[in-house]
Amino acid sequence: MNKKCGRQTVRIDNVKIKTAAAIVGEKEGQGPLAQYFDIVLPNNEWNEKTWEKTESKMQREAIRLAVQKARLSLADMDRIFSGDLLNQCIGAGFGLRDLEIPFYGIYGACSTMIEGISLASMLIDGGFAQRAAAATSSHFCTAERQYRTPLEYGGQRTPNSQWTVTGAAAAVLETDAEPGDIAVTHLTAGKIVDMGIKDANNMGGAMAPAAYDTIKAHFSELNMKPSDYDMIITGDLGKVGSEILTELLAQDGIDISPNYKDCGCLIYDPEEQDVHAGASGCGCIGTVLCGYFLDKMRKGEIKKLLAVGTGALLSPTSSLQGESVPGIAHAVSLEVKTGGEKQ
Amino acid sequence: MNKKCGRQTVRIDNVKIKTAAAIVGEKEGQGPLAQYFDIVLPNNEWNEKTWEKTESKMQREAIRLAVQKARLSLADMDRIFSGDLLNQCIGAGFGLRDLEIPFYGIYGACSTMIEGISLASMLIDGGFAQRAAAATSSHFCTAERQYRTPLEYGGQRTPNSQWTVTGAAAAVLETDAEPGDIAVTHLTAGKIVDMGIKDANNMGGAMAPAAYDTIKAHFSELNMKPSDYDMIITGDLGKVGSEILTELLAQDGIDISPNYKDCGCLIYDPEEQDVHAGASGCGCIGTVLCGYFLDKMRKGEIKKLLAVGTGALLSPTSSLQGESVPGIAHAVSLEVKTGGEKQ
Repeated sequence: MNKKCGRQTVRIDNVKIKTAAAIVGEKEGQGPLAQYFDIVLPNNEWNEKTWEKTESKMQREAIRLAVQKARLSLADMDRIFSGDLLNQCIGAGFGLRDLEIPFYGIYGACSTMIEGISLASMLIDGGFAQRAAAATSSHFCTAERQYRTPLEYGGQRTPNSQWTVTGAAAAVLETDAEPGDIAVTHLTAGKIVDMGIKDANNMGGAMAPAAYDTIKAHFSELNMKPSDYDMIITGDLGKVGSEILTELLAQDGIDISPNYKDCGCLIYDPEEQDVHAGASGCGCIGTVLCGYFLDKMRKGEIKKLLAVGTGALLSPTSSLQGESVPGIAHAVSLEVKTGGEKQ
Repeated sequence: MNKKCGRQTVRIDNVKIKTAAAIVGEKEGQGPLAQYFDIVLPNNEWNEKTWEKTESKMQREAIRLAVQKARLSLADMDRIFSGDLLNQCIGAGFGLRDLEIPFYGIYGACSTMIEGISLASMLIDGGFAQRAAAATSSHFCTAERQYRTPLEYGGQRTPNSQWTVTGAAAAVLETDAEPGDIAVTHLTAGKIVDMGIKDANNMGGAMAPAAYDTIKAHFSELNMKPSDYDMIITGDLGKVGSEILTELLAQDGIDISPNYKDCGCLIYDPEEQDVHAGASGCGCIGTVLCGYFLDKMRKGEIKKLLAVGTGALLSPTSSLQGESVPGIAHAVSLEVKTGGEKQ
């Protein structure tokens, strides 16, 4: 059966997000979305000897929690997709090693959660899995020392820099979407877009053109418009990047401003918690989608949501070698399934 | 349609590997498989300023070549799956940024090629893509300085260490397998297996239990035996790991020895090219499968092949933190489609 709706977009017929879980750090637990997260860590370590081990633990526990909420066991999961920002994705590799779930490692930088939901949806909808999970994580302390400077160094941050979320998220997807369920209806896969931005501190700016490209393809291939959604969210463009995105789309006559939010602008309080241009990290859209937005959908406050994960495909090595920052964005349409309607 | 054959194994009904390409380095071009590779680099740089840029270029050119051989254009590719060993998978991120193909980044360490073929096969067979590509790369010089020591340091290698292949490979997969085509028939997804090996120089030993786990699941879920294949190959277990694998399976009454080869033991000449325990790297099974084994299948010398990609999910950081080395293995069954037979 042909499920293609265009070069980048496909239709998903019968998949739901059954449950999800979000675990965040101390700082995120002091932010405006605190009540939506399942666990707030008491400190950066969570009884582990290194921050990397903490990050692995967060990812593992998020998965356990999402599976538990679904009243399933780990053995019921046919596949899991996961990845993170750590070199060689050790958040996933070590976090998931004891779970005994067939595993596909993915790397979409901060778009990883949406990439995972996309691939899990296609595997389920194609009949290759009955249930699959998607997960990701990021940790401020592991990201700082890997990408920037040791925390002890106390480097000053530029105004357009973003704060890496300490957080892990997991979603359990399953076949058979019934009325009231949060169904996955469409996926739009992103192309790598590089507009030549070389400032590794301006990741929102670097990722905005990729988000623009994917969102434009989504609306065009499905012949839809922004007002067809109750809410459109991006991952972690932050203040700088989300303004660029809105402008780029406006130039093409696509006005997302009435119903658009960037998760990077939601998780911290811009007045009370100084994070400059906002939040970033795989855990950003991960926890804000799995904690906050899916809750809004379950309560019926949002019925149709377009979630666009955004990733910057750089590394410290590429920046040192004078390279620009390529971006990628993957989109997932979610919809609360209604009664008699045939999806 | 249910395509599950067991917890880890699925059936693929109508997907073929249409074309493939393999590019290797100078040393690999002096080995016994030289004639099977499309391009042998004249040196480690290939006119690029850094080895990382060389690796990106290799990956890009392998894809271009595979697409060209298929008499297609890049715009005909619905999706591409790729990843590599470099931090943040910059081989893929930078190598593919100009291709404008919707991209899913993956990370399976040296199992990446087989993970990519697996995911591409499911997307095509599920109707989500008509054509998709899978690619990967590794480069001895980029891997040494990232994982071990700067090349200039001239560190001595342990007897069970392996040599990272300089090589990139790409495969173009398409729907509609006709007689004579190389069809993908089954996939077995691996679980992460960690038997506690802490020696980062013994990756073959660390990955062998994962290969064992996947191969055992494959035969058991499909009710098959090793002699049902003309050839069973693993990615880069090397001399040490492939002996462990053969023994582990033999203990369960599964004798793969008559028709088993490890790509890590094939690409270099053990007498003339001193690489200790053999070859490793994403490019190992990538180039040996796409160059050598697919050629044997096209010529009808091998009709049924089980290709098992093996990956070690460690990082230098995890090793420094005293962690063991988790392994993963993904398997793909390939078969030359025969005349009247219904697949």
